[in-house]
Amino acid sequence: MDADASARAIDAVQRTRAGSALAPGEIERLVADFVAGRIPDYQMAAWLATVACRGLSRPEIVALTRAYVAGGETLDFSSSGRVVLDKHSTGGVGDTVSLVVVPLVAACGVAVAKMSGRGLGITGGTVDKLESIRGLRPEVDAAEIYRLVDEVGMVITGQSARLTPGDRVTYALRDVTGTVDSIPLIAASIVSKKIAVGAHGVLFDVKTGSGALLPERERALELARLMVEVASDAGLRCRAVLTDMSQPLGYAVGNALEVREALDVLRGEVVPGLTELASTIAALMLRSADPQLTPEAAEKRVAAALAAGDGYERFLRWAVAQGAEPDALEQPGGLPTADHQEVVVADRAGHVHEVDPRAIGSAAVRVGAGRLVKGAPLDYAAGVVLRRRVGDRVEPGEPLAVIHHRDGVEPPTAAVRAAFEIGEDVPASRPVVLEVI
Amino acid sequence: MDADASARAIDAVQRTRAGSALAPGEIERLVADFVAGRIPDYQMAAWLATVACRGLSRPEIVALTRAYVAGGETLDFSSSGRVVLDKHSTGGVGDTVSLVVVPLVAACGVAVAKMSGRGLGITGGTVDKLESIRGLRPEVDAAEIYRLVDEVGMVITGQSARLTPGDRVTYALRDVTGTVDSIPLIAASIVSKKIAVGAHGVLFDVKTGSGALLPERERALELARLMVEVASDAGLRCRAVLTDMSQPLGYAVGNALEVREALDVLRGEVVPGLTELASTIAALMLRSADPQLTPEAAEKRVAAALAAGDGYERFLRWAVAQGAEPDALEQPGGLPTADHQEVVVADRAGHVHEVDPRAIGSAAVRVGAGRLVKGAPLDYAAGVVLRRRVGDRVEPGEPLAVIHHRDGVEPPTAAVRAAFEIGEDVPASRPVVLEVI
Repeated sequence: MDADASARAIDAVQRTRAGSALAPGEIERLVADFVAGRIPDYQMAAWLATVACRGLSRPEIVALTRAYVAGGETLDFSSSGRVVLDKHSTGGVGDTVSLVVVPLVAACGVAVAKMSGRGLGITGGTVDKLESIRGLRPEVDAAEIYRLVDEVGMVITGQSARLTPGDRVTYALRDVTGTVDSIPLIAASIVSKKIAVGAHGVLFDVKTGSGALLPERERALELARLMVEVASDAGLRCRAVLTDMSQPLGYAVGNALEVREALDVLRGEVVPGLTELASTIAALMLRSADPQLTPEAAEKRVAAALAAGDGYERFLRWAVAQGAEPDALEQPGGLPTADHQEVVVADRAGHVHEVDPRAIGSAAVRVGAGRLVKGAPLDYAAGVVLRRRVGDRVEPGEPLAVIHHRDGVEPPTAAVRAAFEIGEDVPASRPVVLEVI
Repeated sequence: MDADASARAIDAVQRTRAGSALAPGEIERLVADFVAGRIPDYQMAAWLATVACRGLSRPEIVALTRAYVAGGETLDFSSSGRVVLDKHSTGGVGDTVSLVVVPLVAACGVAVAKMSGRGLGITGGTVDKLESIRGLRPEVDAAEIYRLVDEVGMVITGQSARLTPGDRVTYALRDVTGTVDSIPLIAASIVSKKIAVGAHGVLFDVKTGSGALLPERERALELARLMVEVASDAGLRCRAVLTDMSQPLGYAVGNALEVREALDVLRGEVVPGLTELASTIAALMLRSADPQLTPEAAEKRVAAALAAGDGYERFLRWAVAQGAEPDALEQPGGLPTADHQEVVVADRAGHVHEVDPRAIGSAAVRVGAGRLVKGAPLDYAAGVVLRRRVGDRVEPGEPLAVIHHRDGVEPPTAAVRAAFEIGEDVPASRPVVLEVI
């Protein structure tokens, strides 16, 4: 601890509360003081809580983003001689998009280096999904990242703890102080990681609706725009999509279940929501890599790759290159499967009006697909597979969803049934891509 | 630490930020969790910072006040058979009012139990002033408080650490997280202490102007009204005055110097600002004790007591009863005196337009009258005595102030001179009592 650093932190709290902007150097020093342990947690917590109330100016957000990156490892793909892209989702239930998009874009000739996280709460994490593939190394070092991008044109990995040290310690504190849901703090955290990853461009998938970090569409849109601006300031080629998370994406919720669904999509199966969103994102990424490409040409290339199964082939090649056992993805028996499948049936006829993503996500966590505390063990086979989505017709006794669970785990049947709202009339159709930024 | 308590704290941060009021029981549990160490400092810091931004509803402030009192010692004067009053100032430079008012009111037949604090920063503390009186016990226990009230009709003492445990731990955290200057937090902190002290009524002296905790008059007025409402809710007889702290109160700034000045006022000397404010407050307290008393009658009784030196006699009786050596207040030689008196003279002619209370307070701290960190030792004899106040005429070479300091301490002459703003014209007169609530 350092008295001068503490005095500066207290001053920062007071000024941010009073709406007086801090200079970029002041924000960088505040974060550096926190990373170095020169100020206590409670002072940083007070500043973060104040930011969550008062917001930050654009220059302050840019400075905070830079401060998160400072002192950490950064990757550099400039020697690879090609454009390398990244993709980020703000998280959702059944959000398997990365496992479809990354191999699909790679199969279309554009390299992707995707850094992912683990799931917490109802939101799944790509690293957990990778762990359901036998042998696959979910976290590889910089040397292997460069090698995989060179050899397979793609990598999906957990993010090194040595990247963005400022974000790491700040995020841990936000998580336990109720300051996660702050647009400037989210933007700085996400963009800092993208800068450190060193990709040339990034596609942001910002979710909105009841299952999203920011349920209100206006706030999600604000985040999307802000991230594009801050990342563009840092020299990244950026696009963002605002997408629906008012129901789970696709059908599968759970680690191996989602890997399987991603492989199905890559083999050309049309999974509602998931195929459309993955195709839209893949086409935007192709256009980021090649600004000359027209929207139509990009969509056509993606559709052709899906039809030909190119993305599927790429997924298999990459998985093995990153350590997966050769038969880990073979059907049947490759991916782990659950002992039991409990079918949840409808008790009335009608059309599905809502499938509450939080309720489905919670049910999946309950059977072991997710975790409520960091480091909790997972059941990779467990989860929930929807059989109906919003707008679908159902008769009494027909399945709404299937709960995959192991022996000794009570399936949360009533909770899954209650997640479905069934009404008489046909609900308005609900697009998955709400806006392209 | 306790996971459920942490989850509740995080929820409290989020709801307070969203403007959704917490139930009284939730606030009481939050504070109890913090006092018991079930939640970490950083969670309470995040909540306090959020409150400092968003404010609290009236029922929340009442609940927070009760929560601060819970689990602590409380005093009870009901068995004394008389009305016992308390008095609180939000703090200022040269604020010697308590040392005048308490014996004055006691001399008029109304008992006063005054709990005081130590000085920190530019604000003096009554406990420090008491310590400049040889032998006087600045902190006495409950039994002695009851005895002194019974026998002398007054007590002035530091506050037991066993009163308001919730406020104690919260205040310590506010002090290091930039969340001191929040009206609801200030109100709950002050009123909780008044409730625990168990007096039947309380007079709040809320300072405003550049030397005050809340310099803006509107915010100080808001605090004054809020404290009266919250304390009245708790069954206390309350009055408040909004008073000027745009210049030091009276002439003396420093511990023994202020004791001496208080004794001068009690002997009938008219010290600008101080005599008027002490008389106003004393009269309001007499009327709190006896609601039948007219303003005129109350003022007359106070003036008569001052003229007769009754308050002075009471001060001496009380000081000895609380342990002071019999000759500790005798002139000369009773109170400590400084080795050196450095006279600061005017370098131009004119009228005094401003005497910056922060600059004078800082100069006094610099020579040893106050402290910048808790527990720092004091020089009880040191300080600054003004020779001119706002509106006074001065000629070049005439004294503006005298710095009292010991050997080896450099008197901050230039800083004291710079505290005086001298102009050609006669400034508007500046009343000390701005509003009575």
